[in-house]
Amino acid sequence: MAEPDIVVICGGVGAARFLKGLVRVVAPERIAAVVNVADDMVLHGLHISPDLDTVMYTLAEEIDPDRGWGLRDETWAAMETLGRYGDRNWFNLGDRDLGTHLQRTGRLGEGASLTTVTQELAASWELELSLLPVTDDAIRTRVTRSDTDEELSFQEYFVGQQHGVPVSDVRFVGIEDAKPTDEVLAAIDSASAILIAPSNPIVSIAPVLDVPGVRNAIAVASASVVAVSPIIGGAAIKGPAANMLRELGHDPSATGVARLLADLVDVMVIDDVDAALATGVRAEGVVPWVTNTIMSDPEAAAALARTTLAAAMLGGTDDR
Amino acid sequence: MAEPDIVVICGGVGAARFLKGLVRVVAPERIAAVVNVADDMVLHGLHISPDLDTVMYTLAEEIDPDRGWGLRDETWAAMETLGRYGDRNWFNLGDRDLGTHLQRTGRLGEGASLTTVTQELAASWELELSLLPVTDDAIRTRVTRSDTDEELSFQEYFVGQQHGVPVSDVRFVGIEDAKPTDEVLAAIDSASAILIAPSNPIVSIAPVLDVPGVRNAIAVASASVVAVSPIIGGAAIKGPAANMLRELGHDPSATGVARLLADLVDVMVIDDVDAALATGVRAEGVVPWVTNTIMSDPEAAAALARTTLAAAMLGGTDDR
Repeated sequence: MAEPDIVVICGGVGAARFLKGLVRVVAPERIAAVVNVADDMVLHGLHISPDLDTVMYTLAEEIDPDRGWGLRDETWAAMETLGRYGDRNWFNLGDRDLGTHLQRTGRLGEGASLTTVTQELAASWELELSLLPVTDDAIRTRVTRSDTDEELSFQEYFVGQQHGVPVSDVRFVGIEDAKPTDEVLAAIDSASAILIAPSNPIVSIAPVLDVPGVRNAIAVASASVVAVSPIIGGAAIKGPAANMLRELGHDPSATGVARLLADLVDVMVIDDVDAALATGVRAEGVVPWVTNTIMSDPEAAAALARTTLAAAMLGGTDDR
Repeated sequence: MAEPDIVVICGGVGAARFLKGLVRVVAPERIAAVVNVADDMVLHGLHISPDLDTVMYTLAEEIDPDRGWGLRDETWAAMETLGRYGDRNWFNLGDRDLGTHLQRTGRLGEGASLTTVTQELAASWELELSLLPVTDDAIRTRVTRSDTDEELSFQEYFVGQQHGVPVSDVRFVGIEDAKPTDEVLAAIDSASAILIAPSNPIVSIAPVLDVPGVRNAIAVASASVVAVSPIIGGAAIKGPAANMLRELGHDPSATGVARLLADLVDVMVIDDVDAALATGVRAEGVVPWVTNTIMSDPEAAAALARTTLAAAMLGGTDDR
């Protein structure tokens, strides 16, 4: 198998949909998905990797289409028993899905790295791209509520509070001591294109880029770096990205995302509805490409992926 | 609630059936079931306590009546996913049952003792007796195969090999450093009867009695000690007890069980079919009581429990 030469920096749902488009445009073997693990947690003894699983299940065509997370045709018997015992069932784990967490936890307990286990799981679902956690070390996102000053785990914020509380701070515990894997550094080094998927810049993209060594590897790589804005018309398709940007003092717009990523990114793909922001993006030193970025179906995702790849191949060439 | 005054030393299935009879004969609040934990294991990150769960599910009328373990109306979606990933699904964990292991593991992870967690679980199933692990410390049964000299965990032997391989040694890792809980010692001390359920003497009863302090507590307690033989006509109702006794050099009979327990036991209840062994049992210094010990239904279990209690109340009085 050829080494992958297209690197995609990924969070969960937005990245999974983008990758589902990308695999229609280029051979999957060319793609290395470098995935956030700061949402990971050990819950009831099980190691859970929400973003890795969302990408894996989506590409395997096994994601639940209505929920957007977890497996389709799911049952909830374990959660029903857990609910009998108390309130530990706040984080829904489907019965089918539990098999993945049991396998991952078992293999990690045997000393396998998260990278190895992820490769094994992905192979079992017949994924042809490289699915890579950014690091094998533990990183844990902590979110401070501005209304109570309480610090929550990411899932306590995202699932427990349904990201409905205001945020004053986000930090990634353990990130200073985390190391990117050799596989991630090699993929970035040999990449012909580095794409940043339309994922939450604060809690999905940042904890990938902030792993010591990742920013520098991207900066010195020869490939162009193209981001897709997850903010469209001032809102996120899904999730708390726009609210988080606003609450943390950033501009909740494509321009604000461009400003956050300007030191690494050559091009940013923004949506047609944000065409008027192209000037602002350019003012951040980022070349804007304007297209439809709403991945309403796999064809639309493929078109977005094609445009994004084209932007990377053309480097910083402006399309306007 | 009054303190329990009837202590039952327990393994899994045989003890569960015996207890189901006993709760029909005396108020459940009077009973403290002191349960083996040497079959416990951490599997895929989850703390599993097979004997505690068998007793709990049986008394809750939720045990699967055909399998004899696990919950009724069970589904197996997690195991199907796990099977997709490899061979880690050798130990069947039903979806409903997984909720128990998630709760136990989560609470232990928060620092709760196994005793506390067990009380919480039992209360949720509305058990009225005291369900007590003999210790909060980790004990792990290891079984040596005589054909390969390989050492297996108990569940690898019992489930993985379906107890179909010959055994040359059994040991309980960690037992020297284990301490009986205060609850167990208090129940033994204040007991008016100490019953040993018809469980495997080698791998269920021994790792309860051999926890340092338990034998002595029983020896100095004022209560009579009555065991029910798990061996009937040279065979166990279920499981490897007879084979194990034979392979480890013991007599696979009620007499052999009496010999193993003679230092602690005043009376042993043996089955009608073993009436001819009464002399041999008495020769071990143990008073034999002969009755039907096959717990074919709850009424039969209740009759056995009543006889066993009577033997304890009458002390070493021979019934012949």
